Amino acid sequence: MSDQKKDHKDLREECVRQETIFQGRLLRLNRDSVRLPNGVETTREVIYHPGAVAIVAREGDELLLVRQYRYALERETLEIPAGKLEPGETPEACAQRELREETGYQGKLTYLGRFYSTPGFSNELIYLFGAEDLVWAPLTADDDEFLGVERMPWEAAIHKALQGEFQDAKTTLGILMQAGKTRD
Amino acid sequence: MSDQKKDHKDLREECVRQETIFQGRLLRLNRDSVRLPNGVETTREVIYHPGAVAIVAREGDELLLVRQYRYALERETLEIPAGKLEPGETPEACAQRELREETGYQGKLTYLGRFYSTPGFSNELIYLFGAEDLVWAPLTADDDEFLGVERMPWEAAIHKALQGEFQDAKTTLGILMQAGKTRD
Repeated sequence: MSDQKKDHKDLREECVRQETIFQGRLLRLNRDSVRLPNGVETTREVIYHPGAVAIVAREGDELLLVRQYRYALERETLEIPAGKLEPGETPEACAQRELREETGYQGKLTYLGRFYSTPGFSNELIYLFGAEDLVWAPLTADDDEFLGVERMPWEAAIHKALQGEFQDAKTTLGILMQAGKTRD
Repeated sequence: MSDQKKDHKDLREECVRQETIFQGRLLRLNRDSVRLPNGVETTREVIYHPGAVAIVAREGDELLLVRQYRYALERETLEIPAGKLEPGETPEACAQRELREETGYQGKLTYLGRFYSTPGFSNELIYLFGAEDLVWAPLTADDDEFLGVERMPWEAAIHKALQGEFQDAKTTLGILMQAGKTRD
């Protein structure tokens, strides 16, 4: 990796033994034995995830958001459209598909960046896109997904993001990165 | 929840049967059977996490970052200081402890907000703080953690965040939220 430096101490944890505890529809859980830089052995619990996309889609001066029930949180959330990568699917194709499935629109995509959602225990990588010039082109959504689309004025969304009023990281992050690019 | 509306459709997924697959040092994995709004049953894979804090700590015009090896990613990252909540610990106490353990400093904390890192499969909630007026007050870190502290000019950090050059969500989010508050 280009940001590694030759003169800094070695922080690497070496895998001694892999153990897959669970392979589900979405997640794989490993509890691996690793050797730390000081030679001591410990375990690491890791969730492997296929990766995902999220889309900051704007029509005119409004942001498209989806309301959905999040079982893990036992509550509804209001988030930017998002979804996981299918095998072999590019992030761009996934973003276009998820946008059409979740909001009914397709759009002109701009890549904003990618980030790990929670590197302490998972390799989930989320690719973030902006979408504009939206055209109605609905696709049928996953049959276990129930969504409601809502609109919010873009300036209000930026304000809510800065106040920490959205529930999830990718929504706030997407809005603030898009807002920063627009104002650059 | 105050943002639920009375007139919108019911999106709730009802738990039919809980099944704990794994209870580790850090994570609990459930595969629950749930009933969807249309009456169909499916399963949800959920990772339960104790919650975490992350700290945007600035000394003068420099941001403090920690370089560490992330086993889940098989690489090093440069992130803001962070760590998980201990049982019974308040987010503020956790932030102060993690800052002392990971950088050696304690500081005056400002609450920036909280967010779910990845609500599609985990309940992990991250509390975000700013820290200023830093004073040297080191605590011994976790014995399985190996870190290197680095400093970055604050304006460079904002630029890198907007360019999507940090690897993880909480680092970019923390920098952009702190920058937005400072400029409000």
